[in-house]
Amino acid sequence: MRVAYQGEPGAYSEAAAFAFEGHDIITVPVTTFDGVESGACDRAVVPVENSLAGSIHRNYDLLLTHKLYIIGEHNHRVSHCLIVNPGVRLEDVRRIYSHPQALAQCEGSLRALGSQVQVIASQDTAGSARILRDEGWRDVAALASEHAAELYGLEILWRGMEDDSSNYTRFLSLAREPLPLEMLPEPAECKTSIAFAGQNEPGLLYRCLSAFALRNVDLCKIESRPLRSVPWQYIFYIDFAGHVGELRCQRALDHLGEMTMLYRMFGSYPRSADNLKTRA
Amino acid sequence: MRVAYQGEPGAYSEAAAFAFEGHDIITVPVTTFDGVESGACDRAVVPVENSLAGSIHRNYDLLLTHKLYIIGEHNHRVSHCLIVNPGVRLEDVRRIYSHPQALAQCEGSLRALGSQVQVIASQDTAGSARILRDEGWRDVAALASEHAAELYGLEILWRGMEDDSSNYTRFLSLAREPLPLEMLPEPAECKTSIAFAGQNEPGLLYRCLSAFALRNVDLCKIESRPLRSVPWQYIFYIDFAGHVGELRCQRALDHLGEMTMLYRMFGSYPRSADNLKTRA
Repeated sequence: MRVAYQGEPGAYSEAAAFAFEGHDIITVPVTTFDGVESGACDRAVVPVENSLAGSIHRNYDLLLTHKLYIIGEHNHRVSHCLIVNPGVRLEDVRRIYSHPQALAQCEGSLRALGSQVQVIASQDTAGSARILRDEGWRDVAALASEHAAELYGLEILWRGMEDDSSNYTRFLSLAREPLPLEMLPEPAECKTSIAFAGQNEPGLLYRCLSAFALRNVDLCKIESRPLRSVPWQYIFYIDFAGHVGELRCQRALDHLGEMTMLYRMFGSYPRSADNLKTRA
Repeated sequence: MRVAYQGEPGAYSEAAAFAFEGHDIITVPVTTFDGVESGACDRAVVPVENSLAGSIHRNYDLLLTHKLYIIGEHNHRVSHCLIVNPGVRLEDVRRIYSHPQALAQCEGSLRALGSQVQVIASQDTAGSARILRDEGWRDVAALASEHAAELYGLEILWRGMEDDSSNYTRFLSLAREPLPLEMLPEPAECKTSIAFAGQNEPGLLYRCLSAFALRNVDLCKIESRPLRSVPWQYIFYIDFAGHVGELRCQRALDHLGEMTMLYRMFGSYPRSADNLKTRA
């Protein structure tokens, strides 16, 4: 199986792909998920939310622009290391590169390093480690995974730089077809993800949520994103507990359909075990 | 009046500060809003949302960590220019620096430049223009405002690089005290912003929204952010139409208070004129 992930070898997404699918897979670094749609890859693993830094909104937008389904979720414990070329000491470091999400998760630790250290946003964590190695920089560090440090032969100056040890990233596994109903566990162990936008009128969101609340369908997450070309109007992304095979969920979705002008079903999938108690 | 903004001279936030408060102000570039709390500055102007790229979540978090009130909003038309050192041609450009939000707003235009151009996220737009000038780079461009190009004596290769001309950023004006009720216009021309987190139980968000919907208080915006140290639980930020002097709004907030364990009032303020029809 070929599993696409964004970033460079050593990325957290690659580690999540192995955790999801086992070690008998070929991981393929990509910049877009077009290859999954076209069949060049079988799956994609994509981060959508971090428990400290919040949603990765770009990837919510990607869900909408690609015709892919969610077939699973995985919570991955993220621990950032401060990585340097061998022999470089903490007091030599003048610049630190990493992805904005990683920098956000380590904000307090970075501030503690003082103002002589410049923090620079880069495209990804593992890529920052690779560039550091390629350039041989002696005054630069990267924030990336332990695996990235090993992969590129670098040294770790500081482990667990994240401000809060409850630092998890939620990854989704995407495929061209949704999971068949018969492969889903019990409804209580499932989640379903959708997106919708409604006619812009007072009380819209409340009425849309009533489709779920009136049938005791429990929401896990709500996220709003701008509706392109209509300033200050929104698309809502909702995760709810349960699967599309349940009558109450079907009815809730039919009811929601009466109120929406845009609707997308991303599929039902097993909830991550440590995420069973989540609610919005 | 001293108005704090994040970024460097030439930043969009600085332009928004002038648009808000007129040209008889002193604009003060800052990295945090501590100076506004302590009295070193009178106000802060901070971007919270872009109509294409979405909310600026970091600044929602800042609202919660600072004891400041919202006293106004302003929609600023954002147009990005591709800026280079004098004489540099488009075909010379190999790297483009800008803030991730600006890069996101110009994603299509940037892709059209081809894969030989590397896109690099930086701390801010005007700062990218300044560095470009300071370093004298001949193969680098920045995405920033026309004003930044003038300020740093740079040339504009491409105006209006944003993918969609309906590109507005919503700025908030913050102060140490809320606007007094008697300075507010009619309720229909006001907005109020709050944040809350509830006890984690099924239907929570729906019941919280009912406090507003049952009293015909119209929501303009809802945003969720992670509740730190409790993975997968959320703080909700809500903007609603009306002001805190209205009985129905007071009752809605009292009702909401019955269901929340965390609550913050950011104040009532006049709606931006072009934002009067916004709804969620």
